[in-house]
Amino acid sequence: MSVINLVVIGYGGMGSYHARELIQEKEGVKVIGVYDIDQTRLDLAKENNFTVYPTLESVLEDKTVEAVLIATPNDSHKELAIKAIKAGKHVVCEKPVMMNTAELEEVMVTAKVEDKIFMVHQNRRWDNDFLIIRDLYKEKQVGELFQIESRVQGANGIPGDWRHLKQHGGGMLLDWGVHLLDQMLFMVDSPLKTVACDLSFVLGDEVDDGFISYLTFENGVKAVVEVGTTNFVKLPRWYVRGFEGAAVIKDWDLSGEIVKQTGTIDHHNLVPIQAGQGLTKTMAPPSEDATTTLDIKEVAADFDSFYHNFYDVVRNNAEPIVKNEEVYRVLCLIETMFEAAEKKEILTFE
Amino acid sequence: MSVINLVVIGYGGMGSYHARELIQEKEGVKVIGVYDIDQTRLDLAKENNFTVYPTLESVLEDKTVEAVLIATPNDSHKELAIKAIKAGKHVVCEKPVMMNTAELEEVMVTAKVEDKIFMVHQNRRWDNDFLIIRDLYKEKQVGELFQIESRVQGANGIPGDWRHLKQHGGGMLLDWGVHLLDQMLFMVDSPLKTVACDLSFVLGDEVDDGFISYLTFENGVKAVVEVGTTNFVKLPRWYVRGFEGAAVIKDWDLSGEIVKQTGTIDHHNLVPIQAGQGLTKTMAPPSEDATTTLDIKEVAADFDSFYHNFYDVVRNNAEPIVKNEEVYRVLCLIETMFEAAEKKEILTFE
Repeated sequence: MSVINLVVIGYGGMGSYHARELIQEKEGVKVIGVYDIDQTRLDLAKENNFTVYPTLESVLEDKTVEAVLIATPNDSHKELAIKAIKAGKHVVCEKPVMMNTAELEEVMVTAKVEDKIFMVHQNRRWDNDFLIIRDLYKEKQVGELFQIESRVQGANGIPGDWRHLKQHGGGMLLDWGVHLLDQMLFMVDSPLKTVACDLSFVLGDEVDDGFISYLTFENGVKAVVEVGTTNFVKLPRWYVRGFEGAAVIKDWDLSGEIVKQTGTIDHHNLVPIQAGQGLTKTMAPPSEDATTTLDIKEVAADFDSFYHNFYDVVRNNAEPIVKNEEVYRVLCLIETMFEAAEKKEILTFE
Repeated sequence: MSVINLVVIGYGGMGSYHARELIQEKEGVKVIGVYDIDQTRLDLAKENNFTVYPTLESVLEDKTVEAVLIATPNDSHKELAIKAIKAGKHVVCEKPVMMNTAELEEVMVTAKVEDKIFMVHQNRRWDNDFLIIRDLYKEKQVGELFQIESRVQGANGIPGDWRHLKQHGGGMLLDWGVHLLDQMLFMVDSPLKTVACDLSFVLGDEVDDGFISYLTFENGVKAVVEVGTTNFVKLPRWYVRGFEGAAVIKDWDLSGEIVKQTGTIDHHNLVPIQAGQGLTKTMAPPSEDATTTLDIKEVAADFDSFYHNFYDVVRNNAEPIVKNEEVYRVLCLIETMFEAAEKKEILTFE
């Protein structure tokens, strides 16, 4: 079937990324033009051989444009999405999808009424590190996971633009938090029961520059989700514990280790180690034959690529991989986290 | 002045450790005998060339014994301490000092009335890893610390004895938690404001086999304190962040790194890195000239050794390094942590 012609709205970091990816048709989708309110960005797009649209209206009036991709600051997503949907376009929207759940609800209703596809680009469901952890969760190579810690820590602060400002939906809970929370809720197939969250304001910005949160699920899984932007040393990207082992993935390079328990711990023959000013059996390494190490192997996603799926949703009525109900649930969680941080309370969820 | 003759009560792990350390006089203190209710332990002590006492009474009646060291299961500390104090002995007590604050109060009052020294062996104030972190906190080599994470994780479960049982004061919050919390409160010179805690019961014991807690102090310091006994992969022993850097100490061997910010982050020239399915400037490594690495060097304690101090307290009316009021505060915190875990609430403190 025919290619979906798409126009990128907002030629910044993510917008130019999508434009580059889809400059040639890929999996049924092709970028045929770019629009940005900033003339210097439009000039750059033209230099990069994209057709540029001078106004939003000119995009929406162009009958050859079947879909738009919104990659603008967060506070403009809603208006742009609704205008595009009402003009008969399908919409791919960058994350975080909206400023709040009320906005998202409005867009979801509009998409339903107009019978258009609205789909959020939660690209990190395809991250290799995440897919490995999700595979451990599903396939139980180290037993059922009961503790999942997901951290992203950098030292560069918040990049110098609208992400510093509340009115544009800045802050790290919305920016990186939405990725880590989307991954967690996509992976853990259980209602989320309690939410604790502490925001950090190390940079003195009006928005959070990171957060640490603790989530407990009905099935017993406990999760730590943490983002930091002033961390000159990093903790591992993932740290998980199962009933028969544990795993760590240190970084995007997938370095780390998976340790599986293979035998019973022989408590009578544990040799205490000197640990600081004391001896400890409890914290001594388990005997060598009690564990084995598994390789960290890349795991292919058991679902299509984002663009491929978007094409199938539009053309073949396929089920979207990123469902709006899931995106809505993550946004509810983010709102609850802001509230939990504000009140300094553990809040219930679902 | 004359040596303090000490008898060890309870010839288990810590009791035999002290006996070995003090078999020759050391810093004014000397073990002159051992008592244990278990004949096989007494036989072992005899084999190791210690004078053994057949009964507690025989220890307490011996006028040559000036002090006793209590290293028995936790639920027996109170009765033994009070008996010894009333018999005119000074007391060194292993941690966790008592089952609860009420017990400790009773012992503290008795020691005051009888004018005897009661001092708790919080040996991990002398741990090299702790002293390095405490030095970072005090000397601000990476700026003022605002986040301090202290973890001890093993894979051997709870050692197979009374530590499995509630009635004996078992469980990891009391066993290892008391060390990490004592270190934290000894280091951070500020009132503790809020306490969150989640206990783990992975082993299915009646007592906790670990916990994760989040503490916030009035001066802005936020602390994670965590103990695990079913962790087949470990997170670092210490992870701290300051306003000008961060540090990690991975293990008792003092491996790790200290990174100090030396220049301003040049946001305009940050090169985004490919991280999973996306590009990120935020999480890219800072430019090379923006940081430097400091050596991890052993730091001598700026206070005497435990035995030396105990001697000075008894003979010269010196100030104890481990003050009973501090020990009491830690026990209050542990009680609050049990309550916070039970209620699933963030509780206020001080």
